[in-house]
Amino acid sequence: MATVSLIEYENASAEVRAVFDDIKRTRNVKDVNNFWKALAHHPATLKRTWESVREVMQPGALDAVTKEMIYVAVSVAHNCDYCIHSHTAAAFAKGMTPEQYAELLAVIGMASETNALVTAMKVPVDPQYLK
Amino acid sequence: MATVSLIEYENASAEVRAVFDDIKRTRNVKDVNNFWKALAHHPATLKRTWESVREVMQPGALDAVTKEMIYVAVSVAHNCDYCIHSHTAAAFAKGMTPEQYAELLAVIGMASETNALVTAMKVPVDPQYLK
Amino acid sequence: MATVSLIEYENASAEVRAVFDDIKRTRNVKDVNNFWKALAHHPATLKRTWESVREVMQPGALDAVTKEMIYVAVSVAHNCDYCIHSHTAAAFAKGMTPEQYAELLAVIGMASETNALVTAMKVPVDPQYLK
Amino acid sequence: MATVSLIEYENASAEVRAVFDDIKRTRNVKDVNNFWKALAHHPATLKRTWESVREVMQPGALDAVTKEMIYVAVSVAHNCDYCIHSHTAAAFAKGMTPEQYAELLAVIGMASETNALVTAMKVPVDPQYLK
Amino acid sequence: MATVSLIEYENASAEVRAVFDDIKRTRNVKDVNNFWKALAHHPATLKRTWESVREVMQPGALDAVTKEMIYVAVSVAHNCDYCIHSHTAAAFAKGMTPEQYAELLAVIGMASETNALVTAMKVPVDPQYLK
Amino acid sequence: MATVSLIEYENASAEVRAVFDDIKRTRNVKDVNNFWKALAHHPATLKRTWESVREVMQPGALDAVTKEMIYVAVSVAHNCDYCIHSHTAAAFAKGMTPEQYAELLAVIGMASETNALVTAMKVPVDPQYLK
Repeated sequence: MATVSLIEYENASAEVRAVFDDIKRTRNVKDVNNFWKALAHHPATLKRTWESVREVMQPGALDAVTKEMIYVAVSVAHNCDYCIHSHTAAAFAKGMTPEQYAELLAVIGMASETNALVTAMKVPVDPQYLK
Repeated sequence: MATVSLIEYENASAEVRAVFDDIKRTRNVKDVNNFWKALAHHPATLKRTWESVREVMQPGALDAVTKEMIYVAVSVAHNCDYCIHSHTAAAFAKGMTPEQYAELLAVIGMASETNALVTAMKVPVDPQYLK
Repeated sequence: MATVSLIEYENASAEVRAVFDDIKRTRNVKDVNNFWKALAHHPATLKRTWESVREVMQPGALDAVTKEMIYVAVSVAHNCDYCIHSHTAAAFAKGMTPEQYAELLAVIGMASETNALVTAMKVPVDPQYLK
Repeated sequence: MATVSLIEYENASAEVRAVFDDIKRTRNVKDVNNFWKALAHHPATLKRTWESVREVMQPGALDAVTKEMIYVAVSVAHNCDYCIHSHTAAAFAKGMTPEQYAELLAVIGMASETNALVTAMKVPVDPQYLK
Repeated sequence: MATVSLIEYENASAEVRAVFDDIKRTRNVKDVNNFWKALAHHPATLKRTWESVREVMQPGALDAVTKEMIYVAVSVAHNCDYCIHSHTAAAFAKGMTPEQYAELLAVIGMASETNALVTAMKVPVDPQYLK
Repeated sequence: MATVSLIEYENASAEVRAVFDDIKRTRNVKDVNNFWKALAHHPATLKRTWESVREVMQPGALDAVTKEMIYVAVSVAHNCDYCIHSHTAAAFAKGMTPEQYAELLAVIGMASETNALVTAMKVPVDPQYLK
């Protein structure tokens, strides 16, 4: 169904294996998920993307769950099936509660509605928001 | 510039004023922002939208800052100028730090990139994400 | 501000003038709007686009106002400033009432919210919708 | 396949059943469709969303079929599978003819094309559209 | 699964067959793909769309592969499953190499990320870009 | 107008100046454009984004003009004003001809139209596209 096949560890080049090993170590998982197996066709993109994700998604000023919830919000707005499934699962795995998930969905829905209303009416930005 | 004019309090109907009063009381502001003045042309939509926003955005399982950051993420993905300005300002007003803002942007950017890569390759969802 | 300049009738080629003349005749206007002046850099696209718009937007099983309202709905979802302005104006010019406009906006907003909620939850399509 | 399970009437809380009952009564159907069963995990969102949909989608200045066609247009632009299926079915059920459907699609397609062309060229809005 | 059935050549009207014949001749294929069979319910849209696609996609100042890659980029941004599959296949059939495909994906991903970052920060356009 | 201020070279930290210097050297320009000045508030994102852009946009299996045209296509689909202006300018600077630009726009427009039509009809993917 994919436009590319998935490359498993045993068939991967040394360059790809090095990235897969780092993903498995960093996330403490036995195997990488399909996204990385698909990206493995392009080792440069695989390496760059993983290093960026690793840097961006580590806990910092925002904790890991908040980052995953923001990731879900963006993925819903872009309607990315794979990303919605994988990051919703990741958010739950990292501690998102059902109540938080319910509120996350409510905010996403609300934002989508008011985004559309504002856009339709082309409301001018209030001066206090423009510094 | 708007497709509708803005209705100020002094020209508003009693029905609209009641909503404006509730917004000002709830948010402790002297005047409502332009979005509500534009919506005031449609009192039913004004009332329904405000009551929904008030319910959804009150702190609950998620705190107020997190909700505003999610709102920003959705608004960026929908490219809603007004919403990006107003909710970024709201997030800062409610306590978002510059470091949190920097990480919020980084996650939004990262999610947008991986959303596009996954979508392009039509990667099948891993079975563990499908319960 | 445009990435292309606008071509006025007096500076247009015969090929472009023929399209401009047909637009003015069909719409009974003195001058074409900026979209066509921008497209005039690409006479083939100008001609093809105008002929398609003329065919699609003529009243048929759907009346002219309904077609303009659908055009507005799509333009809001795509966040196309120019299109929102021009087609909202066109809808009013063709007879859309303020009450219809208010309901149009309410439906666009509502659809945007439920679209996001359904997408986030990846709800399976009910069998009765799949024939 | 959903990120949430579906809650059937027999397993629903009294609060959820009250909403389900109102949906069934209002729409004269034997069972609610999957969207509501998924939302039932979040009774507050379920109630708020249903009450909004009921208010917005009732015939008013716009008739029921026109509202469903606008809903389809927005859902196509947002690429919401579930919504396209359910609202296309609803539009047909409420009386949309095949000829109207054909014209609806043609307008959606045309708007999508000119939205993109205008956006690419950043055409300035004509002064007559800005009041 | 489609909202419309597919019309096969043997059940098609003369008007539809004429378009199907032209597609098969132009592309040197034995049968048209599903998109055209679905559009066949609306002969006017079928004819207009095919004639536009034929004109736009013929090699000109841009070669056929470049046009298909641009088509893929737009389809990914719009998240159109069918289009991603069909135009990725078409690009490969017309000569796109795996290296070109890898770079196409990398550019699409990069553009999606910087699009989001710029949009979030509402960066003012540099004067040198505005002529 | 931006949600962040622009950081000029003379006010930048050593870390930011190092990135600015590399951008100026690589692109042979006297000053960096506003995008980088805005990102300078987040040195880590600035550095990561620039290094990714430098790697992705260098000529490879695809030449520099083709990469810029793909960037424009994605930016139009995402409706990113800044990006449309800057990458259209970059494409022209790197050698895109007016004829190529006209065809680029035509393909973007066409793809947007057929994307919407296919999505509306939920056309099943032909088996030959699924390997």
